[in-house]
Amino acid sequence: MSEAKAANPTNTSKRLADLRGLMKKEPKVDAYLIPSEDQHSSEYLANCDERRAFISGFTGSAGTALVLHDSAMLFTDGRYFLQAGQQLDHNWTLMKQGLPQVPTWQEYLSKNLPSKSRIGFDPTLISIGDFETLEKDLKPLESTLIPTSNLVDTVWGSDRPSRPSNSVFPLEEKYTGKSSKDKIAALRQEIEKKKATATVVTQLDEVAWLFNLRGSDIPFNPVFFAYACVTPSKVTLFTNKDRLTPEAVQALEADQVSIEPYDSVVQHLQANPLCSTSEKVLVGKKTSVAIVNAIGKDKIVVDRAPVTDAKSIKTDTEVEGFRQSHIRDGAALARYFSWLEMQLQSGAQVSESDGADKLEHYRKQLDLFMGLSFPTISSTGPNGAIIHYQPDPTDCAIIKKDQVYLCDSGAQFKDGTTDTTRTWHFGEPNTDEIRAFTRVLQGHISIDTLIIPPETSGLLIDSLARKFLWEDGMDYRHGTGHGVGHFLNVHEGPQGIGKRIAYNETPLKAGMTLSNEPGYYADGKFGIRIENIVVVRKAETRYRFGDQDYLGFEHVTMCPMHRKLIDKSLLSPQELKWVNLYHAEVLHKVGPLLQGKNEDDIRALAWLERECKPL
Amino acid sequence: MSEAKAANPTNTSKRLADLRGLMKKEPKVDAYLIPSEDQHSSEYLANCDERRAFISGFTGSAGTALVLHDSAMLFTDGRYFLQAGQQLDHNWTLMKQGLPQVPTWQEYLSKNLPSKSRIGFDPTLISIGDFETLEKDLKPLESTLIPTSNLVDTVWGSDRPSRPSNSVFPLEEKYTGKSSKDKIAALRQEIEKKKATATVVTQLDEVAWLFNLRGSDIPFNPVFFAYACVTPSKVTLFTNKDRLTPEAVQALEADQVSIEPYDSVVQHLQANPLCSTSEKVLVGKKTSVAIVNAIGKDKIVVDRAPVTDAKSIKTDTEVEGFRQSHIRDGAALARYFSWLEMQLQSGAQVSESDGADKLEHYRKQLDLFMGLSFPTISSTGPNGAIIHYQPDPTDCAIIKKDQVYLCDSGAQFKDGTTDTTRTWHFGEPNTDEIRAFTRVLQGHISIDTLIIPPETSGLLIDSLARKFLWEDGMDYRHGTGHGVGHFLNVHEGPQGIGKRIAYNETPLKAGMTLSNEPGYYADGKFGIRIENIVVVRKAETRYRFGDQDYLGFEHVTMCPMHRKLIDKSLLSPQELKWVNLYHAEVLHKVGPLLQGKNEDDIRALAWLERECKPL
Repeated sequence: MSEAKAANPTNTSKRLADLRGLMKKEPKVDAYLIPSEDQHSSEYLANCDERRAFISGFTGSAGTALVLHDSAMLFTDGRYFLQAGQQLDHNWTLMKQGLPQVPTWQEYLSKNLPSKSRIGFDPTLISIGDFETLEKDLKPLESTLIPTSNLVDTVWGSDRPSRPSNSVFPLEEKYTGKSSKDKIAALRQEIEKKKATATVVTQLDEVAWLFNLRGSDIPFNPVFFAYACVTPSKVTLFTNKDRLTPEAVQALEADQVSIEPYDSVVQHLQANPLCSTSEKVLVGKKTSVAIVNAIGKDKIVVDRAPVTDAKSIKTDTEVEGFRQSHIRDGAALARYFSWLEMQLQSGAQVSESDGADKLEHYRKQLDLFMGLSFPTISSTGPNGAIIHYQPDPTDCAIIKKDQVYLCDSGAQFKDGTTDTTRTWHFGEPNTDEIRAFTRVLQGHISIDTLIIPPETSGLLIDSLARKFLWEDGMDYRHGTGHGVGHFLNVHEGPQGIGKRIAYNETPLKAGMTLSNEPGYYADGKFGIRIENIVVVRKAETRYRFGDQDYLGFEHVTMCPMHRKLIDKSLLSPQELKWVNLYHAEVLHKVGPLLQGKNEDDIRALAWLERECKPL
Repeated sequence: MSEAKAANPTNTSKRLADLRGLMKKEPKVDAYLIPSEDQHSSEYLANCDERRAFISGFTGSAGTALVLHDSAMLFTDGRYFLQAGQQLDHNWTLMKQGLPQVPTWQEYLSKNLPSKSRIGFDPTLISIGDFETLEKDLKPLESTLIPTSNLVDTVWGSDRPSRPSNSVFPLEEKYTGKSSKDKIAALRQEIEKKKATATVVTQLDEVAWLFNLRGSDIPFNPVFFAYACVTPSKVTLFTNKDRLTPEAVQALEADQVSIEPYDSVVQHLQANPLCSTSEKVLVGKKTSVAIVNAIGKDKIVVDRAPVTDAKSIKTDTEVEGFRQSHIRDGAALARYFSWLEMQLQSGAQVSESDGADKLEHYRKQLDLFMGLSFPTISSTGPNGAIIHYQPDPTDCAIIKKDQVYLCDSGAQFKDGTTDTTRTWHFGEPNTDEIRAFTRVLQGHISIDTLIIPPETSGLLIDSLARKFLWEDGMDYRHGTGHGVGHFLNVHEGPQGIGKRIAYNETPLKAGMTLSNEPGYYADGKFGIRIENIVVVRKAETRYRFGDQDYLGFEHVTMCPMHRKLIDKSLLSPQELKWVNLYHAEVLHKVGPLLQGKNEDDIRALAWLERECKPL
C-alpha cells in the first residue's frame, strides 16, 4: 500500500553534492532533515512533494532522510527494509528502525549527533508536535533546529513537478450522512470544550471531510490542496477557487464559507488574527511549525485534532456505504481471482502487473467507482515477502502457478473505500505455506470475533492477532490494523491496532473502521497476508461488568479465504465454524452480483461457490 | 495481598485539623501530599511508615492522600475502591483512579488545583522520577513543590511506632546461586555502561539481594532498613551494625564492605562525594529527592535501576528453588483445602480468619519456611469481591458452604517465595459462578501456554488473559501479573503483565518470575481469581522468525483448579488437555509429599487424587 517500486538504486551523488553545497551557505547547517510528509502531514504525496524520494531514491511511504556533510541516512521501519535496501545507492546508510540498538531519527539527532549541531529543516514540513519534542531533546546538547527554505527543492530546481490543482466536487449527503453545516457546528462545540475560540484545519482529508468535498490532487487519495479556518463567526477555505465545480461553489456559498487562495494561508493568518490576544487557537499535533508561527506561538493550544477524531467515527450512512461498496468490490475480486486461476491453469503467462491491470479493469465496471485506493500489490513468491511491493509494469515477475500469490488492493467508491488482501496458491502449496496461512488466519479470526470493553485501545489487542504465529515462532513486522477513511485516505488515524504507543491514546469506539491484516513473510520465499475491513460496533454480551456496553467488530470485506491453504487440524471448532459462516455470508452477499450470462460472471460464480463450500 | 482490613472508618477529624494547623505555619502550603511509600519506595511498610493510613484511615497497599485546607482526597485504583469506600470517613473524598474522568493525583495537582498553589511534600518520600514530572507539569501553572519536614509525623507525635531494627542474616549461595561479590562486579559493569562511576542502591529488596542478606523489618518482606553505595573502589552498606549476625558481619568483612549507620546516609553522601565533579552517579527513578540532593543534582544520571533489572532475572538455582518451594507449598495447600472441605461438610463453623490460621499452621511445618509472604486473603462470598480483602480476626465472616471461597496466600522460604490463589465452592455453585470461573481459567491457560518473541513486554499480552471474560462482558480491575522476588518481596518490579504503560519499558526475559492471576469480581456476590507463579523460559518453536529464541512460561505453582467450577463445554480441546496435564503434574509432584500415615496426609492425598482426576 504505497507507491513503492522494487527497482535499482537511483544514483544520488550529484543531488547530495548539490544539497551539501547549499548546507554550507548561510544559515550553515551540519545536518539537513528531509521528512516523508508534505506540508499537510500527508502519507501519500503529490509528485512535487516527493522530496525524500528525490534525494534518496527510496520511494516507500514512510521514511525520513538525514543528510550530514559526510554521510546520509535513511530511517524506515520493518515494512520497508527489503525495498529500501534495493533502492538506496552507496551514498546511503539504511537505518532499520524497530530493530534492537537502531535509533529512530529523533533519537539519532539527540544521541548520535555531536553537541552544538545545527540541524536544518523546512518549517512547513515539521509538525509542532515533533518540533517541540525534538527541541526539548536537543536542549541538553545545545544543538539547535535551524529553519531554512526547502533546500531539496532548490536542488530539484526546474525538474520539480508543479503542484496539482484538479477539480473539486461535492459529495452528496446521501453518501456522507451528515451535512458540512452540522460538522462545522459540532467542531465549534469541540473548540469551545478545549477552551479555545478558533481552529486551523491542516490535514487534507480533514478539510475534504469537513466540507463534504472531494478532489484528486494526490494519487489514490480523493483530496485537494487546502487549509481551513473556523472561528465562531466565520469559516474560510483556502484553496484555488477556479478548480471548484459550480456545485462545489454553490454548496460553499450556501454555507457562507469564504474562499481564499491556497498559497495565501500564512500571510492571511498573519494579517487577520483568528482571535484576540487573550483567546486561543486549537491546533492538532500535526500542524506545521510554519502555520503555528503564522498564528502566533503564544496563542495556540496543541491537542488532539478534533476533526480527525470526529471523522474517525463513521455515520450510519457511511457504515452502510462501507458494507455495500465492499460487496460490489467482492464481485470484482471474484471475477479477477477466478480469471487468474483459469489463466495459470491453462499455462498462460500473466505478469504481476498484468494481474493488477486486470483487477483494475473489473473494478472500473463497478457502480460508484472513483479510482483505486492505493497501488495494487500483486506479488508472486518471494516478492510477496516485500511487504509493500508494487510491480513495475516494465519489469516484473510472471505469476507462478507453484508459488504463493499475494494480492493487496482496494478502490475508492463514492460510498466507501475498500482495502483487501488475499493470498492464493494455484498449484500445490507446501506445508510451510499452509502452516503460515493457517496461523495468520487464526490471528485474523481472533480479532474479527473479539469483544472488548470500552476504553480499550488498539495497542492492547494487537497480540491477539499474533498469538497463533508466535506459537510457531513466527511474527510480522507491521501493525495489525489501520483506520480507513470513507471515500478518503485508505490509511487514516487516529485509531489503529499495533504496538505503536500512540495507539494507546485512542480507545476504539463504535463507528470506527479498521483493517484487520495479520501476515507472515518468509524472506526470499513467500508472503502471506489476510486483510478485511471491520467496523467497530456495540456487542451484545451475557453480562455487562462495569455497567457498560462492550464492543465488537463487523467485517465488511467479502472475499473467500483460500481453502487450499487452510490446515483444518489447527483450527478450533469455533474457528472452523467462523470460516464456514464467513464463506456462507460471502456467497450470500456477492453471489447475487454474479448472475450475468457473460463468461466472467459464470466463471466467477462457479469459483465463488467452490471456494465458499463448507470446510 | 496487602495489609488491608475491611473495617469501619477511622475518625480523622482531629488528625486533619492538626495537619492543617501545621500547613498554615512556615513554609505555608496550600496542599500537603502524603504518598503511600516509605523512603525506600517500598510497597509494604513498617508500622512507623504507615503515614497515609494514619492520616486517612485507608490501609490498602496503594493510594496517595492529598490534604487541602478545605478538603481531603484519597486516590487509589480499582483493587481498592470497595475497601477505601469502607475505611474513609466523611472528611475524605475517594478518587477512583482508572475510571473515566477521574484524574490521577498527579493530574489533580496540575489540572484541578488553582495556579500558584504551594504543594508541601517530604523530600525523603517523593522519588526523583515523580518529582521531575510533577515539577514540569506544574510549571505552566506557576505552582511549586515545597519541601517540608514530615508534617504527618509531627501530628502522629509520640504515638508513632519506632523504626524496626531486627536481626540481619546471610542467605547462603546454595539458595542464591550467585555470590555478593559477583553481583557487585556485574553492577560495576552496568554502572560503567551507563557512563557513570558510582551508584546508590535505595530500595530495600535491592540491598538485600545485592549482599545476599535477609532481615525482617517489614512484615512479610524479608528486608532490612539499609542503603548501599558502590564506587569503583569501595562498597558501603548503611545499616545499624549491631543488628547483623556474626555470620553476616563475617561475610561483609570478607567482601570488604564498609558499614555505616543507617541514619547517616544523607550526611555521609554530603561529606564524602561518591565521585569527582566531572563524573556521574547512576540512580534509579525511584531514588528519593532527598538522596539526589545529597549526591548533588548536577552529578546524577537517572536511568533504569541496574540492581532491579539484575534481580529480576533469577539464577538457575533460584528457579529450581522456586520449583521446590512451590511443590512443598502445594502440600500445605492440599492439607488446608481438604481440611476446610471436611469441616464445612461436617457443618463446623470456620471463620475466614480461622481458615487463614489453619493454612499458616500447615505452612509452618514445611522445610525452609520463613514466614508468610503477605497476609492471607481468606474470603467467603461477597468478601471475595473485595480484591485485597483481609479478614479481621476479631470480626469476620463464617465461611459458607454455599458461597464461593477465594483464598490468596503465600509464604517465604529460603529457596523461594510463593503466591497462590485458588477459588472453591463446597456446595452447589450456580451457573454465573461456574461461567466466571471457567472464563478466568481460560485466560489463565492462555497466558500459561503463550509463546512470545523476545522484546515483548507484559503490556502487550495482558489482553490474552482477558479475552474470554470480555466475550461474556466481564473484566477485572487489576493487572494480570506482577514480578515475584526470590525469598524477597512478593511484588517486585520492573516486569509485570497489565495495562500500565510503564510495563512496556521492560521486555519479558528468560529467568523472570511473574504471577498469572486473572480474576472476576461480582460486587456483593462473589470473587474469582486463579493465580500461579510462572517462570519465563526459552521456548522450542517450529520456526525462528527473526533468527531469535522465542519465550514461554513454566508454571511452578502446584495446586488443582476446582473441577466443580469448570464448565467443560466452554473449553477448547487444547484447554481441556491443559487442565488434565496440569492436574497430572500436580498429583505427580505433590502426591509424594503426602505419604504420611497421619490424618492430615491421608485426607489431603485422597482429596488431591480426586481433584486431579482427568476431566
